[in-house]
Amino acid sequence: MWRELLPVGRNRDSGGYRRYAWTGADADCRAWFRAQAEARGLTYEVDRNGNQWAWLGDPLAGDAVVAGSHLDSVPDGGAFDGPLGVVSSFAALDELRHRGVEFVRPLAISNFGDEEGARFGLACVGSRLAAGQLTAEAAHRLRDGDGITLPQAMEAAGYDPGTIGPDPERLARIGAFVELHVEQGRALDLTGDPVGIASAIWPHGRWRFDFRGEANHAGTTRLADRRDPMLTYAETVLAARREAELAGAVATFGKISVEPNGVNAIPSLVRGWLDSRAADQAALDTVVTGIERAAREHAERAGIDLDVVRESFTPVVEFEHALRDELGRILKGRDGRPVPVLGTGAGHDAGILSASVPTAMLFVRNPTGVSHSPAEHATEDDCVAGVIALADVLEGLACS
Amino acid sequence: MWRELLPVGRNRDSGGYRRYAWTGADADCRAWFRAQAEARGLTYEVDRNGNQWAWLGDPLAGDAVVAGSHLDSVPDGGAFDGPLGVVSSFAALDELRHRGVEFVRPLAISNFGDEEGARFGLACVGSRLAAGQLTAEAAHRLRDGDGITLPQAMEAAGYDPGTIGPDPERLARIGAFVELHVEQGRALDLTGDPVGIASAIWPHGRWRFDFRGEANHAGTTRLADRRDPMLTYAETVLAARREAELAGAVATFGKISVEPNGVNAIPSLVRGWLDSRAADQAALDTVVTGIERAAREHAERAGIDLDVVRESFTPVVEFEHALRDELGRILKGRDGRPVPVLGTGAGHDAGILSASVPTAMLFVRNPTGVSHSPAEHATEDDCVAGVIALADVLEGLACS
Repeated sequence: MWRELLPVGRNRDSGGYRRYAWTGADADCRAWFRAQAEARGLTYEVDRNGNQWAWLGDPLAGDAVVAGSHLDSVPDGGAFDGPLGVVSSFAALDELRHRGVEFVRPLAISNFGDEEGARFGLACVGSRLAAGQLTAEAAHRLRDGDGITLPQAMEAAGYDPGTIGPDPERLARIGAFVELHVEQGRALDLTGDPVGIASAIWPHGRWRFDFRGEANHAGTTRLADRRDPMLTYAETVLAARREAELAGAVATFGKISVEPNGVNAIPSLVRGWLDSRAADQAALDTVVTGIERAAREHAERAGIDLDVVRESFTPVVEFEHALRDELGRILKGRDGRPVPVLGTGAGHDAGILSASVPTAMLFVRNPTGVSHSPAEHATEDDCVAGVIALADVLEGLACS
Repeated sequence: MWRELLPVGRNRDSGGYRRYAWTGADADCRAWFRAQAEARGLTYEVDRNGNQWAWLGDPLAGDAVVAGSHLDSVPDGGAFDGPLGVVSSFAALDELRHRGVEFVRPLAISNFGDEEGARFGLACVGSRLAAGQLTAEAAHRLRDGDGITLPQAMEAAGYDPGTIGPDPERLARIGAFVELHVEQGRALDLTGDPVGIASAIWPHGRWRFDFRGEANHAGTTRLADRRDPMLTYAETVLAARREAELAGAVATFGKISVEPNGVNAIPSLVRGWLDSRAADQAALDTVVTGIERAAREHAERAGIDLDVVRESFTPVVEFEHALRDELGRILKGRDGRPVPVLGTGAGHDAGILSASVPTAMLFVRNPTGVSHSPAEHATEDDCVAGVIALADVLEGLACS
């Protein structure tokens, strides 16, 4: 099963995956999902937002237990982020059938479309639409880098963009959603556990820092006469690291745009994007306020004009405590050892759905913590441990 | 004369000029040059490399005195860089005719093509070709950002690219070349002089710093697990400023390229270009060695791989002492006051030609020092002082 999915959308040069929503690689992943569903005699369907479902039992009965994740990728992403959750869901079902358990609730496996947002710039489009967190009108306005709109892309892939929008009846029929995901940090590696349970998704945001100085000749302008925004940007990058360290948070300047970006020109504008996340809102506020204060002090000293714009913000997502505690009881019951509960800095479909449905997440150990990179990895033993844990959870929730 | 040239190639939004080689704006500038030549009864010609000439007297007689500069611009450049030298040359001829002097040597005014290198990435193409410092084969391989080659661009502008190459006979007929240019720093403003004489063009070079780290998720990767090349880049930008200050030189990081350049991605690669110039070779070596040492120390501490590549280098250009001293005598003769002699960090056609022809430069005061920017400026009084000084020099060199 895993072997069939591995070559899809893989870039030969980088070894990374380029599975962007509504492309040929995405269609191949979707065909793989459908084949897996049909091979197991599951009822296959596509919802109004292009998300895929495979049902065991009556989809309309209600109180369903759903396991799933996504199959798309970031540019040059790894093999595990997303697919591990879908593959493990099918494998967990195989394990439960092997155990000969009796299902008392409907079970479904799902693949949510366009989780990474690599093509249209917005993450979790499939789950956001279903949960009513993205309107059809706004989704219709999304465009990729080539100017192709989301409806055009869906239509080209053979899906009907006219039906997209909130799907409350479908979500109301779900009693519990569980997403298994490769961990994107090293917390489990540090505690020595193959599997963990998510407590919350950290609040996170993106801020754009525009440093404006004065374009000038790099060869002839005396240092004393310069208003060089690159210097203030550099000070701010280093301040971000210091503030994040102090608060036990993360802060990253990973994207930059410079004007005129010429070798012999002092820049007129350096635009840097800050991504910052922390375990709670207070810590995040402390970090971002500290970075902005440092940037403003350096800007004032260097004659640089600074604008800071918050481009996006997602508050903390606490997964439902009752479901999280139930997962803890189920998994502890196996060998009496408690399973670690950990927060994460990354967004997920589970985070979107948690506003509408009781939702939980399982993480599988990532020995290097590397994520969104071809070097992303999980050992085969840990992947098996993830499947067994997910099977235990689904058995505990859906079987008598 | 000046008024006709001002609107050509001006960008409405920025107020800056976009006069790139072999474009429509360049053709308009060239048509203006030809009209100025013909209005004065001068013999107009284009040389084999597309440089324009306007002759008073016999072009073939030898020992000619030539004044000129360039009409093209950097992206969003100012009105003075280049055109001031060409306009002042025509105005100085008008002044000499008004004085009724008698010419004993041929006089020419020239416009060298593609001095700024804004389109094809190489500066002083017209003078380099003429002086044999750029081969026809290498010039044929130059491409602009749209993939158009230099020969294609020349042909589209109505020039024959098949003839380009060294022009030693033409240069051998020049006894002295004088380029008047707006100063690109504030040295004359600080000494209080409207006009100065160039001593030398500082040695300068461009170095590419490739900082390689590890791409990773900006939200989930612990600070301790990161190899973030943006941090080492930032340290290096600040080190460059410190080293340049210590050595009385200039050092600038004005161009950057980041991979993958995503808001939520720790970069795998940050590529920064250093431009550095100093009054002499020893000072430049000290600055660049110091910056590279600091970069390597920070890179090692942060687990970053660093490659430093020297992409270009131009050694110091000393203008011919005999001609420089003669200009000093001529200009001092007017009111007994010595004219300042100053170095410059910028390259010029005069710097290229100085290897083949006795060459000198005059600078006109720039009150703000701003250059390569729409805010570049010189007062009308200083421009007039420049014309008179150039007329004095041409009279001293070419008249009985």
